[in-house]
Formats: sequence, C-alpha cells, structure tokens
Amino acid sequence: MEHTVIYGKNAVIEALEANNREFNRILISNSARSDVKIERIKELAAELGIIFQFVDVRKLNQIEPEGRHQGVIAQISPIKYTDLDDFIEENKDTKECSVVILDGIEDSHNTGAIIRSCVCAGVQGIILPSRRGVLINSTVEKTSAGAANNIKIIKVNSLTGAVQKLKENNYWVIASDHHAEDNYYDIDYTNMNTALIMGAEHSGISRSLLKLSDFKVKIPMLTNFNSLNVSNAAAIILFEMVRQKMKQRGA
Amino acid sequence: MEHTVIYGKNAVIEALEANNREFNRILISNSARSDVKIERIKELAAELGIIFQFVDVRKLNQIEPEGRHQGVIAQISPIKYTDLDDFIEENKDTKECSVVILDGIEDSHNTGAIIRSCVCAGVQGIILPSRRGVLINSTVEKTSAGAANNIKIIKVNSLTGAVQKLKENNYWVIASDHHAEDNYYDIDYTNMNTALIMGAEHSGISRSLLKLSDFKVKIPMLTNFNSLNVSNAAAIILFEMVRQKMKQRGA
Repeated sequence: MEHTVIYGKNAVIEALEANNREFNRILISNSARSDVKIERIKELAAELGIIFQFVDVRKLNQIEPEGRHQGVIAQISPIKYTDLDDFIEENKDTKECSVVILDGIEDSHNTGAIIRSCVCAGVQGIILPSRRGVLINSTVEKTSAGAANNIKIIKVNSLTGAVQKLKENNYWVIASDHHAEDNYYDIDYTNMNTALIMGAEHSGISRSLLKLSDFKVKIPMLTNFNSLNVSNAAAIILFEMVRQKMKQRGA
Repeated sequence: MEHTVIYGKNAVIEALEANNREFNRILISNSARSDVKIERIKELAAELGIIFQFVDVRKLNQIEPEGRHQGVIAQISPIKYTDLDDFIEENKDTKECSVVILDGIEDSHNTGAIIRSCVCAGVQGIILPSRRGVLINSTVEKTSAGAANNIKIIKVNSLTGAVQKLKENNYWVIASDHHAEDNYYDIDYTNMNTALIMGAEHSGISRSLLKLSDFKVKIPMLTNFNSLNVSNAAAIILFEMVRQKMKQRGA
C-alpha cells in the first residue's frame, strides 16, 4: 500500500475518528508519557483493528526529523482528493454550500490552518490547484489538527475552469483582495452558495480569477501596517459568514 | 552590544522602517536575487547609516539553519519591553485603547501571527508573562513580519496583577473561552478600553484570569470539530472589534 505519514496527537485522533483513511500502523514512542490523548489513540486503534506499536523515539525522529511528532506517527493512505463535478453533484441540495479556493498558497502551515478554520466554519470543500502552491502533505495535516479528514479536498488543473463551473452551478464568487473597495462585512453571505478565493502570500489572487469574481472584498485595517497573515485573513472572512448565518438563525 | 538576529525580508524592512532598534549590521546573501524588497533594505540601510555586507549564503545558513532567512539577516538590539505602568500612563488619553494578553501561548508562530494581527487591528500593546509561554524571539519576529516593532510589548511577572491593574485603570477585560455563553459578536466593544485575553493552545486561560474577566466570549462553530488555531481565534475577535469601530465611524 502506498502510504503517507501523519503525526501529532490531534492529527492522529482526528484521522482515526474520521475513519476514511486506510491505516497501515501507528507508532507510539516508548517514552511518550501516557495521557488522555494517547489513551484515546490506543482505544480507537483497538476498536478499528489497527496495529499500534511502541518503538524507540529515535525511530520516530527518523521519520519526522523536526521533532513535532509528539510521540505519535501514523502510516496511512494518502488523502483522497475529490473531483469538482462530484462535489457539486453531492452538494446540490446543501443549503448555503461553501468552498474556499486557495490560489497558490505556498506555506504548508497556512494551508493547514485555513483548512482547520474552514472545518470550524462549516465550509464543505477546499479547492487547490494541482500545479501551484502546496497540496496536502504531512505538515498540512498536522497544522490542520486533522481537519483535512473532515472536509472534501478538491484538486483541479485549472482554477479558472473551476471558478467558471462553480458560477454556472449557482455559486457566488468572493475574492479577498486588499485593493477592493467593499469591506468584507458589507456583503450579505446568507442564502447563497459561496466560493471564497484567498490568494498567495505575496502575489495575491491572479488577475484572471479576480476578473471572474462576483465580489471583491478587503479587510479594513486600523493602521497601515502591510497586511495580515493569509490564514488569519481567511478566518476573519469565514467567521463573518458564520456570524451572519448565526444571526439569521437568531443565535 | 548585546544583539539578537531577525531574518526574512519583511521583518528586516519593518525593523528598519520602525527605526527603534540599534542595528549592528545587515547580512545579505551574495546569491540573493535582487528584488524590490532587497533594494528597499539597501536604501533604508544607507539612509540610516547601517552597514550592510554581502556574504556567502552558507554564512546565513549558519546563523539561521532552518533556511527561512530569504537571503537577509540583521543583527540588532533585542526588542525593548515596556513597563505596564508606563504603558497605561502613555495611553491615558488614547480613545479605545486596547491590549491583548497572551496567557501561556507556547508556539512562536502563533505569537508572531497574533502580534501581526494586533498591529493591523490597531491594538496598542501585547502583554506577555515573563515565565510562561514564549517571549519575543527570532521566530516570533519573523512570523510577525516585523510587526513586533510597531506595538508595545509589555512583559509582566504576574498576569493576575496586570489584569487587576488594567481594571483599576478603566480597561474592560474580555476572555476568549470556548465554554463561554456569550458569542464574541454580542459584546459592544466601542467606546471603551479593552484587554483581550487569549489562552494557551491546549489548556486555555487560567482560572484566576477567567474569574477576573468582565466578559467571557466564545466563537460559535458551525461544526463540532475541536477548535480553532489560537492566532485565527484572536484575529476573528480582534477584527470584530475593528468592524464595530468602523461601523460606528460610518465606514
């Protein structure tokens, strides 16, 4: 079996709970202090019939040399990417379906943090270009705290093509762009399907995608310091969408 | 001169622009492609009479072995911490003065990203405990994209003491706590001084600080996935404060 590794207690727990990946085995450091999370991993692994082995910590350090494994590594099947057509079809009855499009984000930590925020904000899918920016790797999975298992990850050859298809299928496209005139909180995001585009750390959103967008929004700043980290910017806009939806539900 | 290093193009540019640190020298890699940012660094360094040297990239790799220096490292004086009493005194006429208190945040990337968001959101000060969590190090400065130079960093021995002092000085204390009943957007943050407490990644805010808080707020989620990254949570609450202030100003 082709496999990838995920590491860190939360990432492994989330993957076990999501139960949509094939596990080869879980390696736990001999010297890992047993805690609630380690116990939870052992319990879930036993339930699902997954092998777990206690090994010397040096073995884990070999697999993940940057020492962020927290004493736990799982060898599992790579994340399954979803096809955009399938995603649209599966969600055709989802009320207020939302996707986030990452246009060339290059930092795995940012990608992971955005995926985590997306899951918390009830976003159904993440769209990544197959040739620009990062795809799902171990760092993304770790930083997402396992959230990558709880959302559809859609890989496309052309973001322009994807955006056109979303528009044809009744999605409204919102671009986060700091040159925009509208503030992000002036758009009413309720009662519609949304596709939010976040651009690369330095270069922003590509011109062809900006042109296709229905709304361009900026996050107004109280100082003119350069800009927000892209994962923080995504969180701010996504949770404004949540705020509006919660308000509408009377919460 | 005792010095620290900062690295990365943005971090160095911001430190030069803020011009509140003493520079020993700036090292630029021989093989760094000259671009707008490198040119800006040379221009600012020349203006300020700061020595810059072209060196072999291996020299930079020795100083910052994780390869995130982007070809630029500056040796500068450590960040100056501000005293809480001085901060309160200096800001006694600031309208809607706001500070963010980091209660034991352990990850330098999170601390740096929070500082960056704070500067964008017009926050005046960051309060860090001297003995728990990270202080300002090179990774924090890099992740903050240099924002650490544009805000007062206040180091205190006791967060409880600091919160009591802020309350005596007319600050309203808001704790981000996912057990809270109120949603973060249900508080009116305008026309008051605020102190927002963000808790450690795993353990949250300590009980003694929660008890002292005037408001406890949660960020409602649309799924029950565990939780947001702490820097994203901070950005969401800080920019709700900005949203309210902008609305009040009619923007």
